[in-house]
Amino acid sequence: MSLEIEWLKTPVAEINFDVLRLAEHRQAVLTKPAGSLGRLEEVASKIASMQGNEKPDISHIQCSIFAADHGVAIEGVSAFPQIVTGEMIRNFSSGGAAICVLSRAIGANLEVLNLGTVNDLGALSGVKNCIIGPGTANFSKQAAMNEQQLSRAIHTGRQAVERAKLERFQLFIGGEMGIANTSSATAIVSALLGIPPEKISGPGTGLDEQGVKHKAKIITQSLKLHHAEMKTPLDILKCVGGFEIAALVGAYISCAQIGIPALVDGFISTTAALLAEKILPGVKQWLLFSHASAEPGHKILLDTLNVKPLLDLNMRLGEGSGAATAVPLIQLACKLHNEMASFEQANVSNKG
Amino acid sequence: MSLEIEWLKTPVAEINFDVLRLAEHRQAVLTKPAGSLGRLEEVASKIASMQGNEKPDISHIQCSIFAADHGVAIEGVSAFPQIVTGEMIRNFSSGGAAICVLSRAIGANLEVLNLGTVNDLGALSGVKNCIIGPGTANFSKQAAMNEQQLSRAIHTGRQAVERAKLERFQLFIGGEMGIANTSSATAIVSALLGIPPEKISGPGTGLDEQGVKHKAKIITQSLKLHHAEMKTPLDILKCVGGFEIAALVGAYISCAQIGIPALVDGFISTTAALLAEKILPGVKQWLLFSHASAEPGHKILLDTLNVKPLLDLNMRLGEGSGAATAVPLIQLACKLHNEMASFEQANVSNKG
Repeated sequence: MSLEIEWLKTPVAEINFDVLRLAEHRQAVLTKPAGSLGRLEEVASKIASMQGNEKPDISHIQCSIFAADHGVAIEGVSAFPQIVTGEMIRNFSSGGAAICVLSRAIGANLEVLNLGTVNDLGALSGVKNCIIGPGTANFSKQAAMNEQQLSRAIHTGRQAVERAKLERFQLFIGGEMGIANTSSATAIVSALLGIPPEKISGPGTGLDEQGVKHKAKIITQSLKLHHAEMKTPLDILKCVGGFEIAALVGAYISCAQIGIPALVDGFISTTAALLAEKILPGVKQWLLFSHASAEPGHKILLDTLNVKPLLDLNMRLGEGSGAATAVPLIQLACKLHNEMASFEQANVSNKG
Repeated sequence: MSLEIEWLKTPVAEINFDVLRLAEHRQAVLTKPAGSLGRLEEVASKIASMQGNEKPDISHIQCSIFAADHGVAIEGVSAFPQIVTGEMIRNFSSGGAAICVLSRAIGANLEVLNLGTVNDLGALSGVKNCIIGPGTANFSKQAAMNEQQLSRAIHTGRQAVERAKLERFQLFIGGEMGIANTSSATAIVSALLGIPPEKISGPGTGLDEQGVKHKAKIITQSLKLHHAEMKTPLDILKCVGGFEIAALVGAYISCAQIGIPALVDGFISTTAALLAEKILPGVKQWLLFSHASAEPGHKILLDTLNVKPLLDLNMRLGEGSGAATAVPLIQLACKLHNEMASFEQANVSNKG
């Protein structure tokens, strides 16, 4: 088929390389051995270049969690029952989930977008209903979604970023929730990179060894079923993706087009980031990578993108939780960059 | 000689293992796949067990920076001139150093303790003068300090922790500043572990390859000079240590005796932590390790202590900066532990 969505072709915003050089120069004259703040120096300079501002500021953070069900869950590919997607959306609404605690702690504006679950949740406080359908179709039998659904899901991500821009948020975190979505992500990565599913599949929410094998088998069968149709990244997303993954793809592409730094979470989110980069090369320039997930496929993704995340804490929860956990580091990096005295200001002798 | 300091023999406080089990059980019923918060779960449970409180709290943080000069600096073992120790103490006082920015950002109470520099700095705002002498003696020619100086330096660390206890601080960060103190730390590690200095020596504040070789040579000669006298960890500290390193040793031992969690910074601080553990086995239970330094000897220390720090950001500044950077992670870990809903509370189905 080779689906076309016009706005996905808009080029990414430009990074300000003049400001990057100014920021790097500033780091070199602050009262510390040059380079001794390590990755914190890189992060501060990178954000300065994204914001076109030698003194970067990451105070206002948008955290948008995209949730949806996956038809493939019926194949027994997850350790948790499918009903948990909806139950967790309720938990997001009542403030008890990890991302709620983290968002409160870092002062992020949390919104939850329900793209469709098997059970109708009705209206919930703090949850935007952007229902595309009662979850995707079972991709081991048919395409996960049709073209219109794919387009709507991607657009839902774009709209979240447009709202973030309007409200002047300085960092966008996209999170996800959807039982069986590591199966969807694994299928996408396998199809994108030509790596067999058994080399990527992991326990997700907690499958045992046999469960992981079964999951890989279902994905292998599914990829055979869709093989002829999967010619482009968008085709792959349509055939074996999820609504929330498509929304993340739309969000990352929009962040890059609009010029808002996006902080990428774990395995599912990085799958969306790789898709986004494949759909619109250059998106990666606007992405920061927060943490290395315990899910084994994540390392393959990070290596493919040639990026090193800030944290490695053996986390594997999703919901944007790893990204939210990295926010204070990024804020500290910016504060160090902005507030430290230079050798000249402090009358400190430089390296002999 | 084998110096004896009586209070160093007081046993360490006990960790509450009942609370550890309660905290670990709590982590298992929160609305997330068990274990999916990775190291954040471990940290929260560990702090719960240290505080004897199932709901740990790390809001009030003491950050004490011990600064002192090193006689061995005259041997050209540092990339920066010796005068920088005093200049940086002034920079601490005026708020322009990295640790000042970080302490403000994390809301820590910062105090700077001057144990002695080559130049007299007089009275400075925010700096406690605990002068032992104008820096240590050049340990390539004689012992770095005498017994009385060693005892006073260790005691200065103890007093800082006693003040922190009185003021109900919940976490103690010890930092250090002292031109040439990676040479002192390298000599200590080499003597403690029987590893040749050339396998531990690193660039410190920025030596080139030749500089590192020269540094290793000076340390090798110094260790030969003191070989007969270095029978115990305290002997090693006296012969090739520094006032600020001795103060950190006293601080860590006191934290463990009094029962305050201490967050250890990089290479110099971890050298003090290893000394503390060797002097009073069990101290390690009260230590949290914040980051893996870029200084090559740090990995040897972490492996010897069999600990894995939270962060790996290629930092190598000292001043407690890596420890301060890790504080928000520890606070987030505690908040997640305390504030997340359980499966039962949130009516979320557990693993099938």
